[in-house]
Amino acid sequence: MTDSNDAYRRAGVDIDAQDAALGRIKKLVRSTRTPGVLGGVGSFGGLFRPDLEGVEEPVLVSSADGVGTKLMVAKMAGDYSTVGRDLVNHCVNDILVQGATPLFFLDYVGTGTLEPDAFAALVSGLADGCRENGCALLGGETAEMPGFYQPGDYELVGFIVGIVDRAALLDGSRVRAGDLLLALPSSGLHTNGYSLARHVFIERLGLGMADKIPGVEDDRRPLGKILLEPHRSYLPALRSLLQHPALHAMAHITGGGLTDNLPRVLPAKTQAEIRVGSWRLPDLFHVLQDRGEVATEEMFRVFNMGVGMVLVVDPAGAGEILKILQQQNQPASPIGTVQAGSGGVVYDLGLVPGEDGL
Amino acid sequence: MTDSNDAYRRAGVDIDAQDAALGRIKKLVRSTRTPGVLGGVGSFGGLFRPDLEGVEEPVLVSSADGVGTKLMVAKMAGDYSTVGRDLVNHCVNDILVQGATPLFFLDYVGTGTLEPDAFAALVSGLADGCRENGCALLGGETAEMPGFYQPGDYELVGFIVGIVDRAALLDGSRVRAGDLLLALPSSGLHTNGYSLARHVFIERLGLGMADKIPGVEDDRRPLGKILLEPHRSYLPALRSLLQHPALHAMAHITGGGLTDNLPRVLPAKTQAEIRVGSWRLPDLFHVLQDRGEVATEEMFRVFNMGVGMVLVVDPAGAGEILKILQQQNQPASPIGTVQAGSGGVVYDLGLVPGEDGL
Repeated sequence: MTDSNDAYRRAGVDIDAQDAALGRIKKLVRSTRTPGVLGGVGSFGGLFRPDLEGVEEPVLVSSADGVGTKLMVAKMAGDYSTVGRDLVNHCVNDILVQGATPLFFLDYVGTGTLEPDAFAALVSGLADGCRENGCALLGGETAEMPGFYQPGDYELVGFIVGIVDRAALLDGSRVRAGDLLLALPSSGLHTNGYSLARHVFIERLGLGMADKIPGVEDDRRPLGKILLEPHRSYLPALRSLLQHPALHAMAHITGGGLTDNLPRVLPAKTQAEIRVGSWRLPDLFHVLQDRGEVATEEMFRVFNMGVGMVLVVDPAGAGEILKILQQQNQPASPIGTVQAGSGGVVYDLGLVPGEDGL
Repeated sequence: MTDSNDAYRRAGVDIDAQDAALGRIKKLVRSTRTPGVLGGVGSFGGLFRPDLEGVEEPVLVSSADGVGTKLMVAKMAGDYSTVGRDLVNHCVNDILVQGATPLFFLDYVGTGTLEPDAFAALVSGLADGCRENGCALLGGETAEMPGFYQPGDYELVGFIVGIVDRAALLDGSRVRAGDLLLALPSSGLHTNGYSLARHVFIERLGLGMADKIPGVEDDRRPLGKILLEPHRSYLPALRSLLQHPALHAMAHITGGGLTDNLPRVLPAKTQAEIRVGSWRLPDLFHVLQDRGEVATEEMFRVFNMGVGMVLVVDPAGAGEILKILQQQNQPASPIGTVQAGSGGVVYDLGLVPGEDGL
C-alpha cells in the first residue's frame, strides 16, 4: 500500500471531496425524517415502513421527473437554492392528481466536478421541499462525471413514491360530460417551457438575470427571480379534498400544457372546452407570445398559461369545493367544462372569425 | 389558432418527435408488466399494488443510481443497448443486499435532442433488465435539454423500489467477529471506475473501441465489448438464500470498492480482513494498475477488483451456502473474515515488507 491516492483525481474524480460534501448534507437529509423512515443515511437502499393502518388495499404511486433547462437559469443566476423545491413540488403534484400523498423522495445529482456550496444549496432546496410536503428525503445518488457535464452544470432528477387506498384512486373514470373545470393558478412557468423562455428573454430580448422584463407590469421583479420562482405544491390546499365525492379528477399542467395534460383524465367521447378569457393571464405569457412570435396553439402546449392544476368536479358539488378551497386561501376559477366530443381540448378564444391571438 | 407550431422547435425541443419516440417504446414497457401493475402507460404516476399476502411488516427499500461515465463508452462504441441492463442490475443489487426483492423501476433519460434509435436502444436495455429481474418498468421521464447536454450524449438514471418483511431485513446487525466473507465474481468493471479506465485505455494507451487490450490475456474481446459488459444481477443466484439463517449480511461492491462498501455492514469494533491472493484477479485490473500507475490502495477503492458482491456468512453454515450457490451455478470464493478491530478493511497482500503491488 502507498499513500498515493491521486490517479482517480487526475482523471477528474475526487472521492474524498465527495465524502466531505456528502457529510455536510446529512443534517439536511435528517431534517426531513418522518415516522416511516428506518435506519440512517448511508445504507445501500433507503428503508421506509409505510403506515398501513386503515388502508384496505394500498396502491403505491410513483413518478420520476427533472426540472429541465430551468437548471440553466439557476446557473446563470448563480442560485441553486430553489430548483430542489421545484423538483419535489413537481413530483408531489404528479402523484397528488391520482389521489396519493407522498411517502418518500430520492434525488440524483449529476455534475462534472462537485462544488460543495452549489451542492449544499441544491440539497437544502430538496430538503425544504420535502419538509413542506411531509415527505422523507430517503436517499439519493451523486455522480461526478467529468467531461460529460460542462463545468458548473448540475443535472437534478427526482423520484417520488406515495400511497393511496385503491378505492380513493383518482384515474379519470369518474369524469363525465357536464363536469366543471376549476383552474388553480400557477406561480409562474413552474418547470416547463424554459428552453423557449430563455430563447425569448435572453437571445431575442438580450435581457440579463437582474433586468426587469419590459411589458410585464404585474410582476416587477428581475428576470432571474421571475424565472426561478418555485413550482407550487398543491398538496397543502388539496389534502382535505382528496376524498371529496365531487372531486372527479385532477390534471397537473406540466410539459404539454393544458392541451396534452387535460386529456389524460378525460373518458372516451368527451372533450374539454375552455373559455380562454375566464382567468387572468399573467403578463409574462403575453410577453412570451408577442416577443417570441409564438402561435396561440403552441403557447397552450409549451406553457401552463397561468394554470398549474385543474380540478374536474361535479357541478352539483362545485360550490362546496370552492368554499373549501377559499378556506385554504387557495384561489380557483371555473375555466370551462367537459362535454361530449371527439377528445382533446377545444379553446374558445371569444374572437370574431379570422382573428388570432389572445 | 394557427397551424404554426415551430417556435419551440426553433428553440430546440420537438414535442411531436418526442411523442413518436415515446409511442415506439410503449411495447417495450408493456413487456415488463407484472401482476402488481395497475393502469396503462401514460398516466401521471405509475400505479403498483404490492402483494402483501404473508408479509407481516412490509418495509419498502428504495435506491437511486446512474451508470456514470460508462455512458461515454457507450457513445464511443455507438451502442446504447447495454447500459439499461447495467442500470437495472445495479439498482436490483443495491436493494438485494438488504434482503429486498424488486417491485418496480423508473428511469430518467436526459439528452440534447432525442435520437429515436438511441432512445429505443436505451429503453430496450432497461426493459430486458426489468424482465430478467421480474421488476416492472413502471414509468419514467424523458427530457430534451438542448444546450445542456452535448449532441449524442444521454444521461440515464434509475430508481427502484423493492420490498422485504421487516424480520428478514439484512442491515448488518447479525454480523459478528469470525464471520466468513464470500466473494461472488463481477462480470467486469460493472458501473464504476470508468473515468479512470477511459483515462488509462484511451488517453494513455491510445486504444480504440475495436482494439484488443495488450496484456489482457484472459479476455481477448475488443475494448468496447469488455468495457460495456453489463453489470451482473445477483438476484437470480441469491433469491433462494435471502431467508437463510447463516446469511448475516451482503455488500454490493460499487463506487468506493471493497474498501468503502464492506464497512457499511460491519458492526462497531470489527474490521474486514481480506487475503488478496485468495481469488483470481482478472487481467483487466492488473493492466489498469500497471499502465495507469495506480496505487494498490486506490485500486481497491475505485474498482471492484473482480468482486461484485460479498456475502457475510456464519462459518457454521458456510458449507451449506456454498452448496446452494453451486446448485445455482454461482461461483463463490472465501476471501477473508470479519475480526475484532478498529473498523474498515485490512488487506493482507502476502508480501514481504517493503514490497508493494499485487
